[in-house]
Amino acid sequence: MSREMARPPLGRDELVDWIRREGEARYHDHHRYHQLMHDGKLTRVQLQQWVLNRYYYQTRVPIKDALILSKSEDPAFRRMWISRIRDHDGEAAGEGGLELWLRLAEGVGLDREEVASCRSVLPGVRFACDGYVELVRERTLLEAVASSLTEFFSPDLMTRRVLAWERHYPWISKETLEYFRSRPPKARQDSAQAIDYVLTHATTYELQARCVAALIRKTEILWHLLDSLYGAYVEPGWGPGGARA
Amino acid sequence: MSREMARPPLGRDELVDWIRREGEARYHDHHRYHQLMHDGKLTRVQLQQWVLNRYYYQTRVPIKDALILSKSEDPAFRRMWISRIRDHDGEAAGEGGLELWLRLAEGVGLDREEVASCRSVLPGVRFACDGYVELVRERTLLEAVASSLTEFFSPDLMTRRVLAWERHYPWISKETLEYFRSRPPKARQDSAQAIDYVLTHATTYELQARCVAALIRKTEILWHLLDSLYGAYVEPGWGPGGARA
Repeated sequence: MSREMARPPLGRDELVDWIRREGEARYHDHHRYHQLMHDGKLTRVQLQQWVLNRYYYQTRVPIKDALILSKSEDPAFRRMWISRIRDHDGEAAGEGGLELWLRLAEGVGLDREEVASCRSVLPGVRFACDGYVELVRERTLLEAVASSLTEFFSPDLMTRRVLAWERHYPWISKETLEYFRSRPPKARQDSAQAIDYVLTHATTYELQARCVAALIRKTEILWHLLDSLYGAYVEPGWGPGGARA
Repeated sequence: MSREMARPPLGRDELVDWIRREGEARYHDHHRYHQLMHDGKLTRVQLQQWVLNRYYYQTRVPIKDALILSKSEDPAFRRMWISRIRDHDGEAAGEGGLELWLRLAEGVGLDREEVASCRSVLPGVRFACDGYVELVRERTLLEAVASSLTEFFSPDLMTRRVLAWERHYPWISKETLEYFRSRPPKARQDSAQAIDYVLTHATTYELQARCVAALIRKTEILWHLLDSLYGAYVEPGWGPGGARA
């Protein structure tokens, strides 16, 4: 291990290739829950539960971004990163990504307060999302930034999601999908900033390997969220309240 | 202790009185270093060293505010609190409170890069300021907010400081004092928001006592900063590099 870590750092293009290879292979668009969703094969309850459980992930995002802010000594970096918190919280009540997600929840027939309370989130989803916050809290700023690089892969998925939902779930209104429409340009800008930060600051092979490891852990978090949903709402059918017939 | 903590909570006015009493008695405007400063009795080096060392405190402020953001589950609270980070970092390069403080440093004859590097900060100042960040990291959101209530007392001090500096240190240009002029309205708004949060959320006597304890610890942090300066630059005269003749 230490001999491998002593090798010279990869060039920028090589590192981008490594990040792209590991990220693409593990990104949650390959998960069978997403495949069922995009093939129009989720029931209404299964789709609702994805929205409800994923909201817990959404609520962790501004918290982990605030932790990333707190790890930086550089006002210029903080000025750049703080916009992520604004994107989720909005500038005023009724704005921002969290609000759009709650409207999505209402649009798929869920009770807004029930979703906002996060009280019905699956245990495994909570563990995975809390694990993301802990990863960001415990690791270096560089690794925390690298863990955000799943956004590199999200614009395609969200664009495909809008098309799939419009086609397969016509009972969901178009306005409901505003969150997925609003995200791709932000995700492209955010991931461009993050990849630039990683390429600049991962100056040794060891740091580069840690960045890739943080990204892989992040893909595990997103994957486990869907594993938990699959286990509860597809099969074997265990959810809040215990086993279902 | 536990019997005392079981008593009913104080009313809003009583709690404000308690906070004001403890805060006013311990606020660092009573410190002899501040008294020398406001009486025009600091040498140029002593004034410079206050500016240089206090800059380290200033750099901790957006970091502790980001930690406070990360402790909140409420987008409305975060939307309110995030403006503190903007106030210090600015919206663009060359703006914000940290930049104004570096201009203050240049205005009192210090090298901007030397101050920005924080490499000459006194050990005791570093311990105290790092202790502030740790307090915010380790305690509850409520206590972290309460620890910011020293701002309740700062507008008066800053207004007096501008008058004292203009009178006693005429070699410092008026523009240099912009930081102190810009802060009082912000500090009034910030402390009004913080006191309102504390009055609303400290719903038991024990929570109220913890808020007051957090405020007292914060006054100790500000006080120790000045103790360290006094010990290094007034008497006995120990500073970076060891004892001075």
